[in-house]
Amino acid sequence: MEIEVKFPLKDHVEEKIKNFAEFVKEKFEEDLYFSHPSRDFSITDEALRIRKDMEGVTITYKGPKIDKETKSREEIKLKVSDFESAVLLFERLGFRKFWTVRKRRKIYRFKDVIFCIDEVELLGKFIEIELEGGIERKEELFTLASMLGYKKEESITKSYLEMLIELKNP
Amino acid sequence: MEIEVKFPLKDHVEEKIKNFAEFVKEKFEEDLYFSHPSRDFSITDEALRIRKDMEGVTITYKGPKIDKETKSREEIKLKVSDFESAVLLFERLGFRKFWTVRKRRKIYRFKDVIFCIDEVELLGKFIEIELEGGIERKEELFTLASMLGYKKEESITKSYLEMLIELKNP
Repeated sequence: MEIEVKFPLKDHVEEKIKNFAEFVKEKFEEDLYFSHPSRDFSITDEALRIRKDMEGVTITYKGPKIDKETKSREEIKLKVSDFESAVLLFERLGFRKFWTVRKRRKIYRFKDVIFCIDEVELLGKFIEIELEGGIERKEELFTLASMLGYKKEESITKSYLEMLIELKNP
Repeated sequence: MEIEVKFPLKDHVEEKIKNFAEFVKEKFEEDLYFSHPSRDFSITDEALRIRKDMEGVTITYKGPKIDKETKSREEIKLKVSDFESAVLLFERLGFRKFWTVRKRRKIYRFKDVIFCIDEVELLGKFIEIELEGGIERKEELFTLASMLGYKKEESITKSYLEMLIELKNP
């Protein structure tokens, strides 16, 4: 289970993170999202994506969000050998290319908590704070977020994909 | 495109192969086949499988057979990091575990042609002769097969999966 909160990036937040977390890496991520042959993922609140970054190619299934205040959900990740073959395989199974999300991501870590500073094409800058664990740990994430100057009410529960769809279809 | 012919294994065929082909490897393959959430693969003549062997885990999509005399078809292969995650990912997408095919396979190679001596659980021994190329090259495969003592009419166009299904549902 991926427990995750997201906020719009405010001034000086990254400097605050640098004070207690270690820098891990910076990378450019290109995420291709698919539609399902017989389910409407926008109704079932699921997602299937193939991510390409400097570390390789990863297929990810995201289950429905399990919480109203955060964007926590089951995530199943699978490293694969080749982007083009992965796309073709899902297309042959009836999945269709649906949307591409591109972002530059800077990753920091404090204990088992990951801080991502994201600059998302068309959407702007955000911070995601996440960990792998049980939903009871979401309060830890909100505590860390409050140290950075965020109130619970500012939490964005929509995914970047959902935000981009809304932007194009207001 | 995978151009492929299959025959029941006869006596002395493997000795004949050893005379001109090089031994590549021997391995045990476990193939888990899935059913599709909204298509009947037995009607569309497709297949989705996850193979586990000593070399790792591979997802393969097989398209409909393109020829009546051989079992030639499009194959899309994808090496992946982890068997359990791959199974779970397809299950979450609505695919269901359908059948497992287990075999011991000895592989020989002559130029770009692969000879597989297969001992398939419940079915017995077979030889598959295959290459990656255009369907016009199937006659090369039948020529090699005739050198091993096989007539075109002996060619088996059913997959091991189809043969196992028939065995259980005669």
